[in-house]
Amino acid sequence: MSTERKYTGGMWVYGQIIDRYATDGYNEPRATLDIVKDAKESGLSGIDINYPWPEKDLTPKEFKSTLDAAGLDAVCITPSIYSRKYRSGSFSSSDAQVRKAANDLADESVDVANQMGAKYVKFWPGQDGYDYPFQVDYTELRKHGLGGIRSVAQNHPKTQFAIEYKLKEPRTRLLWSTANASLINIAEVGVDNLGLVIDFGHSLFAKENPAEVLSLIHGQGRLVDIELCDNYREWDDDLTAGSIHLVETLEFLYTVKKIGWESALKLDLFPYRESPVSAVKESVTTLRKLEACVDRLDFAALNAAQSKHDAMAVQGIIRDALIK
Amino acid sequence: MSTERKYTGGMWVYGQIIDRYATDGYNEPRATLDIVKDAKESGLSGIDINYPWPEKDLTPKEFKSTLDAAGLDAVCITPSIYSRKYRSGSFSSSDAQVRKAANDLADESVDVANQMGAKYVKFWPGQDGYDYPFQVDYTELRKHGLGGIRSVAQNHPKTQFAIEYKLKEPRTRLLWSTANASLINIAEVGVDNLGLVIDFGHSLFAKENPAEVLSLIHGQGRLVDIELCDNYREWDDDLTAGSIHLVETLEFLYTVKKIGWESALKLDLFPYRESPVSAVKESVTTLRKLEACVDRLDFAALNAAQSKHDAMAVQGIIRDALIK
Amino acid sequence: MSTERKYTGGMWVYGQIIDRYATDGYNEPRATLDIVKDAKESGLSGIDINYPWPEKDLTPKEFKSTLDAAGLDAVCITPSIYSRKYRSGSFSSSDAQVRKAANDLADESVDVANQMGAKYVKFWPGQDGYDYPFQVDYTELRKHGLGGIRSVAQNHPKTQFAIEYKLKEPRTRLLWSTANASLINIAEVGVDNLGLVIDFGHSLFAKENPAEVLSLIHGQGRLVDIELCDNYREWDDDLTAGSIHLVETLEFLYTVKKIGWESALKLDLFPYRESPVSAVKESVTTLRKLEACVDRLDFAALNAAQSKHDAMAVQGIIRDALIK
Amino acid sequence: MSTERKYTGGMWVYGQIIDRYATDGYNEPRATLDIVKDAKESGLSGIDINYPWPEKDLTPKEFKSTLDAAGLDAVCITPSIYSRKYRSGSFSSSDAQVRKAANDLADESVDVANQMGAKYVKFWPGQDGYDYPFQVDYTELRKHGLGGIRSVAQNHPKTQFAIEYKLKEPRTRLLWSTANASLINIAEVGVDNLGLVIDFGHSLFAKENPAEVLSLIHGQGRLVDIELCDNYREWDDDLTAGSIHLVETLEFLYTVKKIGWESALKLDLFPYRESPVSAVKESVTTLRKLEACVDRLDFAALNAAQSKHDAMAVQGIIRDALIK
Repeated sequence: MSTERKYTGGMWVYGQIIDRYATDGYNEPRATLDIVKDAKESGLSGIDINYPWPEKDLTPKEFKSTLDAAGLDAVCITPSIYSRKYRSGSFSSSDAQVRKAANDLADESVDVANQMGAKYVKFWPGQDGYDYPFQVDYTELRKHGLGGIRSVAQNHPKTQFAIEYKLKEPRTRLLWSTANASLINIAEVGVDNLGLVIDFGHSLFAKENPAEVLSLIHGQGRLVDIELCDNYREWDDDLTAGSIHLVETLEFLYTVKKIGWESALKLDLFPYRESPVSAVKESVTTLRKLEACVDRLDFAALNAAQSKHDAMAVQGIIRDALIK
Repeated sequence: MSTERKYTGGMWVYGQIIDRYATDGYNEPRATLDIVKDAKESGLSGIDINYPWPEKDLTPKEFKSTLDAAGLDAVCITPSIYSRKYRSGSFSSSDAQVRKAANDLADESVDVANQMGAKYVKFWPGQDGYDYPFQVDYTELRKHGLGGIRSVAQNHPKTQFAIEYKLKEPRTRLLWSTANASLINIAEVGVDNLGLVIDFGHSLFAKENPAEVLSLIHGQGRLVDIELCDNYREWDDDLTAGSIHLVETLEFLYTVKKIGWESALKLDLFPYRESPVSAVKESVTTLRKLEACVDRLDFAALNAAQSKHDAMAVQGIIRDALIK
Repeated sequence: MSTERKYTGGMWVYGQIIDRYATDGYNEPRATLDIVKDAKESGLSGIDINYPWPEKDLTPKEFKSTLDAAGLDAVCITPSIYSRKYRSGSFSSSDAQVRKAANDLADESVDVANQMGAKYVKFWPGQDGYDYPFQVDYTELRKHGLGGIRSVAQNHPKTQFAIEYKLKEPRTRLLWSTANASLINIAEVGVDNLGLVIDFGHSLFAKENPAEVLSLIHGQGRLVDIELCDNYREWDDDLTAGSIHLVETLEFLYTVKKIGWESALKLDLFPYRESPVSAVKESVTTLRKLEACVDRLDFAALNAAQSKHDAMAVQGIIRDALIK
Repeated sequence: MSTERKYTGGMWVYGQIIDRYATDGYNEPRATLDIVKDAKESGLSGIDINYPWPEKDLTPKEFKSTLDAAGLDAVCITPSIYSRKYRSGSFSSSDAQVRKAANDLADESVDVANQMGAKYVKFWPGQDGYDYPFQVDYTELRKHGLGGIRSVAQNHPKTQFAIEYKLKEPRTRLLWSTANASLINIAEVGVDNLGLVIDFGHSLFAKENPAEVLSLIHGQGRLVDIELCDNYREWDDDLTAGSIHLVETLEFLYTVKKIGWESALKLDLFPYRESPVSAVKESVTTLRKLEACVDRLDFAALNAAQSKHDAMAVQGIIRDALIK
């Protein structure tokens, strides 16, 4: 890259963070505009915005001014189609009123995205799916779950939409589970303005090789954004980027370069017990070092080894670029 | 069994249930004494009590009276050594003040248990462990994590204590992770009044066969209580008992009978999207049907097949007892 | 169904079975025509035939006569594109000569299938993929891996081809890994005479719900055959059908009925330590009992509960049909 | 370390390697004495010897001479208690004759170890366990499985024995499954001359943190040998060391240094599609670079961060030592 990579992050990184055990939260609640300061302090260039935010009197315009003043972008608007109202599904709910509410919230989110200059509206359908065998009719689930999104995308043809897929959590089975399942879904939705956000951690615990599916999604023309974090391959732990799977993170960043992706990369962390600013800074420092490794890689030698599927030759090349 | 099995449940089954996404909770908050009514309505005979409960003016005595009036037992007191204060560990915290707080809360819990006639004090050390490679010195972690529990147990020699082990969550690595790890820990703690609560679901996702480790824990004289639920072997989904792994639940109940365990069995469910009363009733109905299957099993034929490790013969016996 | 379901099986079920530890094999080698007798004795109606078979002087015609005499069908021909020659890939090999060999073997298999009246030619590309991060260029891997199969399918437009997908083994990463990945691949191959064989066990350890993807594959018009077995969700253990995941096997058979699939179901077992005939008979007995449960299910009540995503109501219906 | 670390390897690394699909083997069979040459060429200092080896006329004495001439050690003798005869268990078999055969083979192995100067006799009880729920009586399984090893160990009090534990494969459930299960088993066996071989890959896919259990096993005085390789946390892929989990391999080597283990480290690889000599050399080169990283680590700074469980501070220290 001619210029230095930018990094962005989710607002949730700096939030209170609650789970089912520490129901008093891992931190004190944090005001939205304070989160802007945190993001700035962390060195980020933009934030992924959960909508609605808790402060009812904070207008999109005012929020945008604060971002502008801090030099931060509104990366995307992420409607909270996973809160209590949507606990049994948003677009795929069995309840027509809930489906309508999801649709309305999506419409509002488009409006907010336009007001704030966000690049896309992101759906994270973490409640859309089921939990038990036999619980749903799969054809029906798809009809509503995909149809609702089709309808929103068709009603806002100038807006870019993206799905962030995930194997599970909070539901045990999700409709947008893997990269390939999401591409099949997108083909069924059948609109041009719907793509995917790939999250390195989601991909890892969906048993994918993140670099491989990044290449696939990009090749199909559906890549909208890229998120980074790490985990132990079994759950969405949202640990700092590069903290566990260094080699696969490196291959992921190599693929980012190979496909010519020059946009900012987003961090999706849940620093339950760490300072969020530190967690972001640690992640960015590691990622920048890994991007420098990628820049040092002898692409010609690597391609030659890859054309023979020569794993041993490849390892020497990687090791020389990566390990001190 | 000469008399019908009793079932108990955790208070949390009937609670609001929050997670990191639906931070407004899956349900409205539920008052402690209303939970007693729910448990009664579900047909339970007792409850596992998280301490402290939210109502500051509710005394143990008053709580106990309400339980007595409903004909319910106080199964155990479970101090909340997993809330914000203990987010980086309770007994194993690196902070001496937090370790002291855990100790004090344990002392209080013993007192409450005595007032309420609870059979044991249960520790669920879900924040005791670590998240990242290199984060802790393992010897030091064990010294504090086991030493703190030893101290409590020695100070209350007439109280029965139990650990509910779990592979992970909320931390990615826990000190009391599996049945065998817990037995090794207990040997190191070195007191007689400390045992284990086995949770079928925790065991399943720790890659154990629950029936096998139930037999092991009982054989070592450390079985204090038994919990039931189900999941997809990768996470503590806390689904209704018998909803997924019917054969392994049957083998678990067969082992319960084989070791002569006549106490109540406890339900550990998180019915995020279902009525808690229904989830408990469904679980109990399934479990009672499975216990009837166990009673129908030809133990002599089964033992004969097992003595030859004859999996095919065993399957016929199980199928005949289980499937309509 | 008006008539009783037929069951078929893979020839390998009755074979010697070797692995990397018991390199002397779990059994004595078994002659191909003896396997026909075994399959007959097991009550099967047809076999999946690995090609080439070990006896060089056994002609397809002679083999077919033996099958006819036993009243068995040749279900499909499965070319051994996973033996030593193809250890680093068949159609996706980096070696043009190996790719040519795979193509030739496929041509031969079509010829044998025609001679023996087999319904389809099955590819199980277990060596097509990679093992290490950075080992291959994914675009190149797809180009060869999908292109080779396209070429075969186009050269034999009257032959039905099918891929049996699998997450991994023997390679750690496979090109035809999941149902959705395979549907994406098929779309890229772009021919009409290529479909999928879904294996319940492969689906389970690919973290899919087998019933859900069966419905999906059928809905996309790509279902060619169905295989059954069981495992612990983490590996292709090839245990007897219904031995572990009874509820999910029941839902799978319910879906088989729902989509109107009246063809035979195939068994894919590796009875390392059991008599193959017993393993098949045990599986079929269990499956027939489960099919009878499906027939007893109150479809109207089930659909009503499913239309509300009512997991608790569904469980009662399933329990009543399934458990004695 | 004052002197350079030595590396050893399993004989199987250089063998034919067969699995259930490529039954013609991934390579040509390799003669035992040729494997000695391969090991020498790879730069190893010793080999782990499967017994019996295929050449019936090769005496231990002659084998030993060849090793001596090559300057290689006989690390240990590993009796093949996992071949066809023991397919349903060795010491834990339900068949008294098989148990006797395992005992006899163990006796022979002690004799061969003495003749060849091997440091220990290693049991890898990969067939000792079960496959299905209800298949065995667990108490009985333990009685035979542990009793047989106790008997061997007591009969050869001057010989060091070690168990290499593994979660599964070839059986789906093993008696010596995890580090903690093995320590519990060893306590029940009750002899002093029985310890453990920890394999980094086995530990990883048993859901352990290898560094943590290495520390535990050493702390209990039961560490006999250490093996290295890598995998994807779900199966014993036996990939080259450091190829996937670099950070956890580094923490493992850090722990090796911390406990003062100066013995050779052993490689346990299955290079199905790679040159074994290359796979070993690549592994050793990576491991030596990682050991140099460990030597560069600021132990005082690391300990200070660990004493506060400060994951973010730790990551900076590790990154500086590891990444170029």
